Amino acid sequence: MAFRPLKDHYKARVLDFSAGLNVILLNEADARENGLYIGDRAVLARNGKQLTTLINISNADIKRGEIGLFRDVSAQLGAKDGDSLLIGQADTPASVELIKKKMDGGILDEREMNTIIGELTREKLSDVELASFITSLYIRGLTIEETVFLTRAVVNSGETLDLGKAHPIVDKHCTGGVAGNRTTMLIVPIVAAAGLYMPKTSSRSITSAAGTADTMEVLAPVELSIADMRDIVLKTHGCIAWGGAMNLAAADDKLIKIRHPMSLDPKGVMVASVLAKKKSVGAEYVVIDIPVGRGAKIPTMDAANDLAREFIVVSERLGMRSEVLVTDGRDPIGAGIGPGLECRDVLNALQCKGPTDLTQKSCKLAGAVMEMCGKVEQGRGYAVALNLLQSGKAYKKMKEIIAAQGGNPNVKPHDIKIGHVRHKYFAESDGRIHIIDNKKVNMIARAAGAPESTGAGLVLAVESGDKVKKGQLLYEMYAESEAKLSYALKLAEDANPVELDTVILGKMMKPGVLELKPKD
Amino acid sequence: MAFRPLKDHYKARVLDFSAGLNVILLNEADARENGLYIGDRAVLARNGKQLTTLINISNADIKRGEIGLFRDVSAQLGAKDGDSLLIGQADTPASVELIKKKMDGGILDEREMNTIIGELTREKLSDVELASFITSLYIRGLTIEETVFLTRAVVNSGETLDLGKAHPIVDKHCTGGVAGNRTTMLIVPIVAAAGLYMPKTSSRSITSAAGTADTMEVLAPVELSIADMRDIVLKTHGCIAWGGAMNLAAADDKLIKIRHPMSLDPKGVMVASVLAKKKSVGAEYVVIDIPVGRGAKIPTMDAANDLAREFIVVSERLGMRSEVLVTDGRDPIGAGIGPGLECRDVLNALQCKGPTDLTQKSCKLAGAVMEMCGKVEQGRGYAVALNLLQSGKAYKKMKEIIAAQGGNPNVKPHDIKIGHVRHKYFAESDGRIHIIDNKKVNMIARAAGAPESTGAGLVLAVESGDKVKKGQLLYEMYAESEAKLSYALKLAEDANPVELDTVILGKMMKPGVLELKPKD
Repeated sequence: MAFRPLKDHYKARVLDFSAGLNVILLNEADARENGLYIGDRAVLARNGKQLTTLINISNADIKRGEIGLFRDVSAQLGAKDGDSLLIGQADTPASVELIKKKMDGGILDEREMNTIIGELTREKLSDVELASFITSLYIRGLTIEETVFLTRAVVNSGETLDLGKAHPIVDKHCTGGVAGNRTTMLIVPIVAAAGLYMPKTSSRSITSAAGTADTMEVLAPVELSIADMRDIVLKTHGCIAWGGAMNLAAADDKLIKIRHPMSLDPKGVMVASVLAKKKSVGAEYVVIDIPVGRGAKIPTMDAANDLAREFIVVSERLGMRSEVLVTDGRDPIGAGIGPGLECRDVLNALQCKGPTDLTQKSCKLAGAVMEMCGKVEQGRGYAVALNLLQSGKAYKKMKEIIAAQGGNPNVKPHDIKIGHVRHKYFAESDGRIHIIDNKKVNMIARAAGAPESTGAGLVLAVESGDKVKKGQLLYEMYAESEAKLSYALKLAEDANPVELDTVILGKMMKPGVLELKPKD
Repeated sequence: MAFRPLKDHYKARVLDFSAGLNVILLNEADARENGLYIGDRAVLARNGKQLTTLINISNADIKRGEIGLFRDVSAQLGAKDGDSLLIGQADTPASVELIKKKMDGGILDEREMNTIIGELTREKLSDVELASFITSLYIRGLTIEETVFLTRAVVNSGETLDLGKAHPIVDKHCTGGVAGNRTTMLIVPIVAAAGLYMPKTSSRSITSAAGTADTMEVLAPVELSIADMRDIVLKTHGCIAWGGAMNLAAADDKLIKIRHPMSLDPKGVMVASVLAKKKSVGAEYVVIDIPVGRGAKIPTMDAANDLAREFIVVSERLGMRSEVLVTDGRDPIGAGIGPGLECRDVLNALQCKGPTDLTQKSCKLAGAVMEMCGKVEQGRGYAVALNLLQSGKAYKKMKEIIAAQGGNPNVKPHDIKIGHVRHKYFAESDGRIHIIDNKKVNMIARAAGAPESTGAGLVLAVESGDKVKKGQLLYEMYAESEAKLSYALKLAEDANPVELDTVILGKMMKPGVLELKPKD
């Protein structure tokens, strides 16, 4: 009974702007007559052209017999004001039954996963359907097989990078949550200087003060096409591009859109999302950094263990080799927080004058990659990476990459524009630094204007474990306007991002109620 | 860390129409600067007024520094073109953590269920969040306790009808799927004539050819206020109103909006939805009709059993008594399908000249209600109901109700406007009627124009089990225009809604592949 009649002719009413979505407005009575409800899909037809759109209702503006077309829709149909349109119910996407199968505890096979991701990519699924899918995956979990199928389907949903005979192609990923932590900008030039190929795509910040793409953009354009990326990597062995500007693993962006509002991140979907991006650039060897601890995305060693195993097994099924390093994610890495300030740390580190933790962590990850692909012998990776830094080869390589991406290779750390409105925070008592809260640090830097104001953020003057005296500098805040600084100041006063150790761990006010101060 | 700073001032750009939703348009860069993504919630503030809205992105039309306001939003904020606005991230609704609790297999307590339904009612939840909630309820199921809490929360989300000392107050519900089946329009006048109070709210059709509200509307206005309903029921003991026009069990409409696209109907949500409406009108005794069989909403006796038990237990916890009648739902009830044609059946039945199946089923349900509340002794309900019909008392009562709702009480069956464009379908061979498919019958009547064209639909000339001769009339189709009729004709040819018994039940074309013709 798939046949659904197209009834009546309607008159197009072109609404002169874009809604960013295929959505049309109907009068409620017309919608009802066609059995259509808010959020349903309808097929619009004009002169043989068809388009599937979502339905919204607007009685106030749309008269009976009219269909309100946003500019996106009118352009696709080539419809002008007053044109005659047909409307009918769209067939239910095949995915709906498959999503229900998953809800009911079924296991999806490769064809079924391809159907869902294919319809998702072609905008056939509504947010409601997609939210049901992600929720089902979260509750029911994914088998390793399903994760493999999902990864392949996401790879197939977009374009791929073909570097021809270039070998070995390596990549890295960090599960995130740690402020600063710009290791990619050191790892890429180190391993490229070692002769590996590293076509790195990175993200912009979502909730942090800066993403790698935001930070690299301080030095050079990051919105590269796949063809640009290919040329740059074949020439210099590396690049640091914004993944969002390319059509790699296209379905992933749509999956993220739904995961974000509910903070739902089913393990299998997270693994598929990461590995699809690696597979799309042709990576053969991948090192994965899983920071663990308060504020990091992965809270416990057990969770890290589970996730690590899955990364490794699924990678293998996809013909890649992955190695996972679980790292201490309780504190920020590096001193600067914010695109310009993090970039300054990176340039300093490339000249062996940067924060020790950033340099060491980057060399460990770079070393692991070089060991994995057999470039250096087991146990020698860290030393080789450090040597590539100290010899200036990595810095020279970074200049090549910056130039290839269209930036100025001769930029010096002090050239980077940093916010001129500043405020220093000092210790209010003696003590030892207990923890520097990643989330609070990011939030304050964002309040100061990061990542849009590239010079905004903060610079940490201490690390956890440091003994401090009352009045000693803890961190300095940078903004590009007084207004921004005052937002950040207000937030910093409430938030207290740098916590000192105290002797008192809990307080009891009434019998039986111990207020614990979270220690970790 | 609930504090989220409001950054910068933006300029209102009023878009001169309504989107039917609280949604604003931002330029992508501004959205990013504020950490906002499509589908996120933001708080808009102007002169101390605040409004929570959803975010959409429109780079083509909205410049940096502008916020596009649909008329709904600008009206609520009192904002004009060029006005200065502040924007910030809205706090995550408390429901998000509770929905996650349910996803993770937790059980919601009364306060938690109230929080979710409260935020839903106040438009604090996005479709994505609501879809996650319904999907979680579908997969995890609801305990009886949770169903009770959900029902109470839905009752509390809207207004209630207070009939003072009126007693007993009765109600009925049908789980649906059967074409025709306008028992409510007979049960209400029968039990009202017996002295019970029946403040009935009914729905309009969603996928069927007519809802009870659509059919009653042929005779009288059905969009009553709660105050109107109260007056009418206190005066006549009954009414048949459209539930959607009232603010009873308000949250239910929002739940239905999400259940509809995925056809998700978790048992506990269905029970809560039905019983909340009954509780909202103060019902003490409820009879529930669960039709079972192909095409009916509940497919098997087992499913009916489960559902029946839950209706009864939850009703009891809410202080109501429910009784469930499981009925044969394989075929339509009555002859007419479509508002006017069904209405004609009802008026005929009130004068003891209507379809036998409709009359008998209605009297059984009315009898059950009268027995439940002790109005008539056990086993006598059906006879008393039939007597109220045959004595003309029920018809007289129906006229009172029609008049009280503002209709013409003297309307005769032949006064009802029926489509003048008609087509008859005849049996193509001798045989016995095997089944009349509810879904196909509804679909054809809708194609002919029902329920909007009140005179459109079809009239069945046979029932299942009837022996027919080749050339005998099976059904007649009615439409209000040739165009509509031709849609319905095309559909009827493909669909074959009236199936004759055949000897051949399956056909094998290749070894091992038996094509079964579904028998039931």
